Amino acid sequence: MNNKKVVIALGGNAILQPGQKGTYEEQLKNIELTCLEIVSLVKIGYKVVVTHGNGPQVGNILIQNEKGSGLVPQMPLFICGAQTQGMIGFMFQQTLKRMLGKENPCEVVALITQVVVDKNDNAFTNPTKPIGPFYSKEKARLAMEEKGETWVEDSNRGWRKVVPSPEPIKIVEAGIIRSLSEQGVLVIASGGGGIPVIEEDEGNYRGVEAVIDKDLAGLRMAIDVGADSFIILTDVSSVALNYGKENERWMGSISLSEAKKYMEEGHFKAGSMGPKVRACIRYVEETGNEAIITSLGNAIKAINYKAGTVIKPL
Amino acid sequence: MNNKKVVIALGGNAILQPGQKGTYEEQLKNIELTCLEIVSLVKIGYKVVVTHGNGPQVGNILIQNEKGSGLVPQMPLFICGAQTQGMIGFMFQQTLKRMLGKENPCEVVALITQVVVDKNDNAFTNPTKPIGPFYSKEKARLAMEEKGETWVEDSNRGWRKVVPSPEPIKIVEAGIIRSLSEQGVLVIASGGGGIPVIEEDEGNYRGVEAVIDKDLAGLRMAIDVGADSFIILTDVSSVALNYGKENERWMGSISLSEAKKYMEEGHFKAGSMGPKVRACIRYVEETGNEAIITSLGNAIKAINYKAGTVIKPL
Repeated sequence: MNNKKVVIALGGNAILQPGQKGTYEEQLKNIELTCLEIVSLVKIGYKVVVTHGNGPQVGNILIQNEKGSGLVPQMPLFICGAQTQGMIGFMFQQTLKRMLGKENPCEVVALITQVVVDKNDNAFTNPTKPIGPFYSKEKARLAMEEKGETWVEDSNRGWRKVVPSPEPIKIVEAGIIRSLSEQGVLVIASGGGGIPVIEEDEGNYRGVEAVIDKDLAGLRMAIDVGADSFIILTDVSSVALNYGKENERWMGSISLSEAKKYMEEGHFKAGSMGPKVRACIRYVEETGNEAIITSLGNAIKAINYKAGTVIKPL
Repeated sequence: MNNKKVVIALGGNAILQPGQKGTYEEQLKNIELTCLEIVSLVKIGYKVVVTHGNGPQVGNILIQNEKGSGLVPQMPLFICGAQTQGMIGFMFQQTLKRMLGKENPCEVVALITQVVVDKNDNAFTNPTKPIGPFYSKEKARLAMEEKGETWVEDSNRGWRKVVPSPEPIKIVEAGIIRSLSEQGVLVIASGGGGIPVIEEDEGNYRGVEAVIDKDLAGLRMAIDVGADSFIILTDVSSVALNYGKENERWMGSISLSEAKKYMEEGHFKAGSMGPKVRACIRYVEETGNEAIITSLGNAIKAINYKAGTVIKPL
């Protein structure tokens, strides 16, 4: 048993595949596939903390809120996020418990998690994160005029509301999560990047309309719980230079300085691999530990340097 | 510091008052009032586990699910319940943390909680618990014919779907909740009576369409975490004999045998005080500890025998 602590950040495809509608059965099936690798890590002695995205789920809840708004008060975005922590947390909790089975009587808990952001974060004056479905220009205009919201046009697909995406500063429940993990409990936490809160004064938190980037939230978690490594599981088996081009090159182990150089050279797209590589670079810089980016089924191989991209401190 | 462990089961009025629509602001305000008493208990040294109802909240989510169903897949009832654990748990967690303040650095966590029911429970062949809004006879007929659901007519108000309300057998996360509570963590758990699951075989749980009575779920929690007392907070300050009649009599301390006698005599209504008194009787019988029924603002008074109805083992 190695007894190492690892934080696993799951991409959206861990719960919902592109093109799927988002039924309970679809999501549960995807989660089952995702959990196979997590359970393998637990079985070889890893203490695992799982964080996950919630984009499609919160999108669906926002639609339900709007459609039901004649009868039922709409909830703020951070409450919809809290709802997804409940539903997705439950699905993971149940699936992991079953897969661990009686031979591995490891406790599994899903914790509602608040993540503090700075109310003076520049993101609040420059909202950039699109949420919910696409709407008409007219609907966007009304929301901007009447509610002071920010909406942006997405080429050909319509208008979409954007909200701030501030930097996570602190995980309110980090102490408990760390303690549970050290006691051998498998913890699911900080779903959807965590429920964003601002701290009015010490211990006085208030929910705020924002979405925290889940890779940065995972990074925060990995640092705050003292993880020995940070693993981002996504839809590609490793990170590529010149992605999609003729001279495309998939990378195995790379050093921190190489990763930083490639980042600066603009190899990683802002909306996909960029934030993942950046989160890993920051993790390696701050902790001196290794960070891994690989696909859902490759976590075990990647910790043994047989798959994925491993960013090493030296 | 007394260091005693107490389970508090909160009635629906702790979160939403009759006549309110259920906005976030309304719910947060009610929760703030409710939390005052919980925080007072923590400050005098009690280790508290809080459970709560979710009737109006899950009702609203069911309406949103239906109204959005043309665009977004509807979720099973137990997933809607998991969502309410997220949203209500977050509101309690945040409010309690703030009220405890920096002088009481007590950690607060909300845990997603599964509660096991027996798949052979008679409730599954005799659904009795109404959920969601009232509909027309035609809608009820269709749902009964096409989906095999059970619906009942409520005098003058229309038709309503009913689901099984099986007995809670075991709280899957009880071990963790007990351990956290003993470490001094304030735990919010088993919201809405818990997410009902059946155990296919050891550790293999599966969500099931049902609603667990929150008083019985609170009783289960109080027993499973080894509470020194069980407190049900509701909308009346104590339990009455001949409630609403000329010879109405409010009760302070009563013995277990008195409580059982009054129960048998039919003093307590099935839909309101009945299940609360029954849960308390069972708690006192099984543990030999005291159980209390009182109103939201009277918990502290009641543990000092200055308010509420205290059921004593002798």
